[in-house]
Amino acid sequence: MSQLFKNHLDKFIKIDEKEFAAILSFFEIKNVKKKENLLVEGQICKSHYFVLNGCLRKFFINGKGMEQTTEFAIENWWITDNLAYERGLSTEFYIQAVEKSEILVIDRDAQEKLLLEFPKMERYFRFVYQRAYAATQLRLKYLYDFSKEEFYEHLCNGHPEFVQRIPQYLIASFLGFTPEYLSEIRNKKRS
Amino acid sequence: MSQLFKNHLDKFIKIDEKEFAAILSFFEIKNVKKKENLLVEGQICKSHYFVLNGCLRKFFINGKGMEQTTEFAIENWWITDNLAYERGLSTEFYIQAVEKSEILVIDRDAQEKLLLEFPKMERYFRFVYQRAYAATQLRLKYLYDFSKEEFYEHLCNGHPEFVQRIPQYLIASFLGFTPEYLSEIRNKKRS
Repeated sequence: MSQLFKNHLDKFIKIDEKEFAAILSFFEIKNVKKKENLLVEGQICKSHYFVLNGCLRKFFINGKGMEQTTEFAIENWWITDNLAYERGLSTEFYIQAVEKSEILVIDRDAQEKLLLEFPKMERYFRFVYQRAYAATQLRLKYLYDFSKEEFYEHLCNGHPEFVQRIPQYLIASFLGFTPEYLSEIRNKKRS
Repeated sequence: MSQLFKNHLDKFIKIDEKEFAAILSFFEIKNVKKKENLLVEGQICKSHYFVLNGCLRKFFINGKGMEQTTEFAIENWWITDNLAYERGLSTEFYIQAVEKSEILVIDRDAQEKLLLEFPKMERYFRFVYQRAYAATQLRLKYLYDFSKEEFYEHLCNGHPEFVQRIPQYLIASFLGFTPEYLSEIRNKKRS
């Protein structure tokens, strides 16, 4: 399964099998059950997660006591509370498995060591953060520009595989809808 | 003035004066007037901007025909339409000088060449994107969690120097307020 990570690295940098084995030794491979929490509000955020297989999500409990999902991570995506991870702070987020998942886990100190020992991993992580930053900027534009209904429409058209894969109540939690309201919109779309 | 960029690099990587001179040769130093546009909707986004002195902002024209500001960049910040920049696409954004500014400009091909010739710049940009990503994730959480009034309050308390520096109509454009509504809130705060 870790070969999937090698394939991902190959898209950005050149490494041979020996180097990959050394790089992989900085990670722990972990199997998580559906709905298992990897991170809980109030904990120090120590780890960075890479999804080999499955799906994770990040959420916080908003002022109304509801789970507000801010991010999903499927295969080949990284996820953590980046600010808390970089600064070794406690988090306001939860990270939870949406599906049974297989992931790579690295801790902050190990990631820093990895970058110092394998400078080409700087290039890899530069790409990872650059793309994640660009994607988040686009999300931000959508939040300003689209109504929630338009955002749902956009999600359905642009990422149908995603909308089909994620349970509807989590899509609702991502969009800031109640599940009832989402179901209303879906019925309207169908009719 | 370019010494300010050296000071910024020094926070992340070690480079000597000779290396810095070579790195700087990849950039153009540019003076921009207040309200001058660096990027206009529909243009191919070719450049990445680093603010030595002054302030830039990024905005788009929303469905109501209003300027929606999504980002400011003051000293030591980078700004561009990252997605369009990376992919060489046309942009939906404007980048405009809020104040008379002095900036460094680098084009995509030059940035890629710089990274290949000076691999330690990979580490620098990895930090730049990592922090920008973390900051944008936090913005996203605020957008979900705060009302616009709470977000303004948060801005005033957390970044008073910023609120004082930026013209009020642009703060309004950042928050998605009309200038009149912002002025109403400010009067309420004062009384």
